[in-house]
Amino acid sequence: MINTIFDFIGDDSGEWKVTSITTIKGNPITAVSHLTKASSNLVQSDEGIWTLKGIVSNLRYTEKEEKEKLVAVQEDLGRPNATLAAFIPIRKSEAWWNLAQDERRKIMENKSQHTQTGMKYLPAIARKLFHSRDIGEPFDFLTWFEYSPTDADAFEELLVALRKTEEWTYVDREIDIRLMKKSF
Amino acid sequence: MINTIFDFIGDDSGEWKVTSITTIKGNPITAVSHLTKASSNLVQSDEGIWTLKGIVSNLRYTEKEEKEKLVAVQEDLGRPNATLAAFIPIRKSEAWWNLAQDERRKIMENKSQHTQTGMKYLPAIARKLFHSRDIGEPFDFLTWFEYSPTDADAFEELLVALRKTEEWTYVDREIDIRLMKKSF
Repeated sequence: MINTIFDFIGDDSGEWKVTSITTIKGNPITAVSHLTKASSNLVQSDEGIWTLKGIVSNLRYTEKEEKEKLVAVQEDLGRPNATLAAFIPIRKSEAWWNLAQDERRKIMENKSQHTQTGMKYLPAIARKLFHSRDIGEPFDFLTWFEYSPTDADAFEELLVALRKTEEWTYVDREIDIRLMKKSF
Repeated sequence: MINTIFDFIGDDSGEWKVTSITTIKGNPITAVSHLTKASSNLVQSDEGIWTLKGIVSNLRYTEKEEKEKLVAVQEDLGRPNATLAAFIPIRKSEAWWNLAQDERRKIMENKSQHTQTGMKYLPAIARKLFHSRDIGEPFDFLTWFEYSPTDADAFEELLVALRKTEEWTYVDREIDIRLMKKSF
């Protein structure tokens, strides 16, 4: 088992209960009532109603000082009180991918302050990025956020801030799936 | 078929004839007499004596000006006169991967002039980088070079220059496999 590859399985039962699915941009996704995040491998999975695969990678834009701050304050996924989550698959346009590294970095940080904005909401909002673009998946990134109900307003603020940035003008497909942990 | 994923299959027959296998650093690889580069998918392949899988991705360090120069002069793989090739799988150390994006970029360009050095040998030496690190493979990168016999000396020069750089001190496994195109 490789611990960098994950399947997000949408189905009619599973680990997280889907509370809403909103198509922000582009084609919608088939509705499901539950989602499971499962450690996986490279084999294409046909589980559930749909499966999206993503790979954890190294940070591709974060600079030394930002990285040190991030590592100091961020929390892991799976905190017992983080009973709410958001799973937001996004795809960026060809125009984005045709930019060079320094141009993308400039848009993300100098103009959009992506890392700074996210940092403001740490450690309350735990987040994780999964890469999908290079493995023939329909989305470029699968973003995952976990938080407790007391931080739900802060999470909405964070999303509003991210979606207002110049970086977000390059997003051409985005689905916002909200989740609640099933209590056993 | 996803056209970003490739298998490099080492076997006792195939597209390219192996002329030498040299372990530059770290554990050696099982000797094979032939290599085939094949468009593939995410399914783990058991073909041949060994298979190494790599994914074509976007350029992660190249800046705008460098990218424009690269695009202007680089040639595609598969030129009829490029009958020699080198397949060099490399792995970098944990110390490298623990660096932030700006630190890695600084070592690659400001100090090691990775792109500049490679550019000097374009278009003679066509090159392609395949990423393996995030998919549980034994190497981080599979590098592929193609050139005509008249450019063989230039290729040796390029390798000597790259291996002298600070960037290369982070390489902890490297196998240098030389290939000759089979004539039919």
